[in-house]
Amino acid sequence: MEKNIDVLQNWLKDQGAEVGFLTDPENIAYFSGYHSEPHERVLGLAVFSDSEPFLFTPALEVEDVRGGDWTHPAYGYNDTENPFTIIADEIKKRVANPSKFAIEKKHMSVDRYEQLGGLFSGSSFIPIEHKIEQIRLIKTEAELKILKEAALLADYAVQVGVDEIAEGKTEAEIVAKIEYEMKKKGVTAMSFDTMVLTGKNGALPHGTPGETKIKKGDLVLFDLGVVHKGYCSDITRTVAFGDISDEQKKIYDTVLEAQIAAVEKVKAGVKASEIDLTARNIIREAGFGDYFPHRLGHGLGASVHEFPSITETNSMELQENMVFTIEPGIYVPGVAGVRIEDDLVVTKDGVQVLTEFPKTLQVIE
Amino acid sequence: MEKNIDVLQNWLKDQGAEVGFLTDPENIAYFSGYHSEPHERVLGLAVFSDSEPFLFTPALEVEDVRGGDWTHPAYGYNDTENPFTIIADEIKKRVANPSKFAIEKKHMSVDRYEQLGGLFSGSSFIPIEHKIEQIRLIKTEAELKILKEAALLADYAVQVGVDEIAEGKTEAEIVAKIEYEMKKKGVTAMSFDTMVLTGKNGALPHGTPGETKIKKGDLVLFDLGVVHKGYCSDITRTVAFGDISDEQKKIYDTVLEAQIAAVEKVKAGVKASEIDLTARNIIREAGFGDYFPHRLGHGLGASVHEFPSITETNSMELQENMVFTIEPGIYVPGVAGVRIEDDLVVTKDGVQVLTEFPKTLQVIE
Repeated sequence: MEKNIDVLQNWLKDQGAEVGFLTDPENIAYFSGYHSEPHERVLGLAVFSDSEPFLFTPALEVEDVRGGDWTHPAYGYNDTENPFTIIADEIKKRVANPSKFAIEKKHMSVDRYEQLGGLFSGSSFIPIEHKIEQIRLIKTEAELKILKEAALLADYAVQVGVDEIAEGKTEAEIVAKIEYEMKKKGVTAMSFDTMVLTGKNGALPHGTPGETKIKKGDLVLFDLGVVHKGYCSDITRTVAFGDISDEQKKIYDTVLEAQIAAVEKVKAGVKASEIDLTARNIIREAGFGDYFPHRLGHGLGASVHEFPSITETNSMELQENMVFTIEPGIYVPGVAGVRIEDDLVVTKDGVQVLTEFPKTLQVIE
Repeated sequence: MEKNIDVLQNWLKDQGAEVGFLTDPENIAYFSGYHSEPHERVLGLAVFSDSEPFLFTPALEVEDVRGGDWTHPAYGYNDTENPFTIIADEIKKRVANPSKFAIEKKHMSVDRYEQLGGLFSGSSFIPIEHKIEQIRLIKTEAELKILKEAALLADYAVQVGVDEIAEGKTEAEIVAKIEYEMKKKGVTAMSFDTMVLTGKNGALPHGTPGETKIKKGDLVLFDLGVVHKGYCSDITRTVAFGDISDEQKKIYDTVLEAQIAAVEKVKAGVKASEIDLTARNIIREAGFGDYFPHRLGHGLGASVHEFPSITETNSMELQENMVFTIEPGIYVPGVAGVRIEDDLVVTKDGVQVLTEFPKTLQVIE
C-alpha cells in the first residue's frame, strides 16, 4: 500500500499541509497494512508532506507492529501516559510549527481535536477524509480479487443458512450455525451481525434475529457478509419455506425485477441516481413505493458501508472499478419483507456481479 | 431509566445549559432504553433543562422506537435529508437560542460538531460525558442483577471452551464452538471478539485466534464475555493442556497470587491505585514486572470498558456498587502468557466476585 501513502503525501503538499493524522482504524489499516481496534485507546497514523510517516499505538501493540509489514517507525504509550503529548513531540521533531494540519474530521472526536488543537495552537485543521474516500473509491486489481473471494464466502454462508431451514428452527439458531461454519472455514469476523429474519420480523428492514421459529409458508431473509483479508462482502437473499401467498410472491417478483433492472443499468458514466431510480420506479409503479424506505445501495471495500452511496439524489457518475451493493427491498408490515442484494464492480461497458447465489425464488420444502 | 434522565436534566440546569445532545449509542440506550447501532447514520438523544426529551433516528427505525418503551417524541430522517437541519429545527422549537449546549465531546466527531456549531453559532459547547460517566459509575440493584447473569453466562462460555480442548484443535475452531453454543443459549452478541490463544500466541496480550493447533504441554488462554440485556461481562482464564513446565507453573502461580491479593484488597474507600499496586508489586517482586504491561482492570457495565480505570496512578476512591475487572497478566515471549480476570462489585465491607469459574490451575488431560 506504500503507493497510496505517496498519494496522500502528494495531496498534503498540494494543500500546503505539512502533516496529516489519521485515526480511523480502517483507514490506518488501508494505508499501513496494520489492522487493530484500539477501543478507547489511541491509534494513529501520521503522514507528512516531506518526512517519513509513523504509526502510533497502545504500548501493548508496538511489538506487533514492528513484527509486521510496517517498515517505518512505530511509537507506543502506556495507560498512564498522555498519548497526545507523545504524538505532538514526534510530529514537532519533523515539523516544528505546522501551519496546516489535515485530520479525519468525520472520525476524530471533539475531545481529541481540542487536545490536538491545544498542542498545535498555530495550526489550522482541514479534513482529509474526502481525499481518502476518493483514493479508496476506485479499487485496484488486488482489492477486486479479495472482494470476489469475500463475496463467494458470503454465497457459501447463505447456502449454510438455507440448508439449515426447518420447521421450528429459530432465527437465532440459524445465525449461530452460519457463523459457526464460517469460523470453521477460517473467517475471523462477519462484516456485521448476521441477520436471519422470518415471519413478520422480515418486514423490519433492520430487525434483530431472535427466538421466532420458522414455519411453513414463511419467507426467510438472510443478510450477511464476511470480512476477508480486510475486505467486506454483503449479500441479502430471501427464500420461501414451502408455499407462499400470491401477495408475497408479487412482492418477491417486484423486488427481483427492480434488482435485475438496476444491475443491468450499471456501467461507467451512468449516474448513481439513475441506478437508484431504475429500481425505485419499478417498485413505485407496482404500488409499493411507500414500502421501500432506504437507498438502493452503498459502496463496499475495507468498510461494509463506504462511498459511493446509491441514492435517488446522488448525481455522481460511476467509474470503472467502483464497488457497491444493489439491494432494493419491500417491507409490508404483516405481509412480507423481501430484499435482494448483490455486490458488484463497475466495468467500462457494464458490470461484474460478485455474489452468485441464485436470485430466482428458492422454495425450500 | 426515566429517573436518570431527570438527573441529566437537573445537571443541565445547574450548568446553565439549556440543551444536551447525546450521540453515543450506549449512552442513548442507557438513558432511553432504545438500543441501536446507527453505523454512519445519525442517532441522537436531545435532553433539555426545561422541556421534554426527544430521540432522533434514521427513518427506518422510527417505528421501532415508537413500538418500544420510549414514551417521548421520536423523529427520523431519510438518507436524502440533512439530519442536523431537522435536529436543529426541533431543538429551536423548544429553545430558540440556547446559550450553552452540552455534547459528548469524547464521542461526537469534529465534522458533526462543526455542523452543529454552524446551526447554533451563538452557543458555547461543554462536555457532558463526565456527568454521564458519574451516573453510570454506580450501579443500581437492577443493573447488578443483570451483570451477575452476564457473568454466569461468561463462566459457562469458558466451560464450553475448556471442554473443547483436544490435541490438534485450532484456536479458531474453539472460538467458533464457544460462540455457537452461546448463540444457541440466546446470547445475541459477545462483548468483544472471543479470544482463545495457545502456545506462543498466549504471550501476546491482545493476540488474534487463528489456525494454531493446541498441543499437549500448552497453556490455553480464554478471554471472552457476553452482552446480556444490554450489559457486558468479561472473564479470562488460563488452563493447562497436560503437563506444563516449572517456569509456566511459576508464572501461573504468580498471576493467581497477585489476582487474589488484589481482589481481597477491594472495598469502599480504598483507592483504585492501591488495588493495582497490590497485584503489580507481587508480580514485580517475583521478577516479572516488565512482563505485565497493562493496567490491572477497567470498569464494566453497558460498555465492556468504562469507568473506573484501575491503574497505579488513579487515586479515585472506590465506592459501593462500582463494578470493574481485576485482570493481572504475565506475558513472557516464548515461554507463557497467563491472565486471570474476574468481574466484581465493590461492597461496603469488601467485594462480591461475579465470575465463578475456578481459578486454581485446571489441568486438562
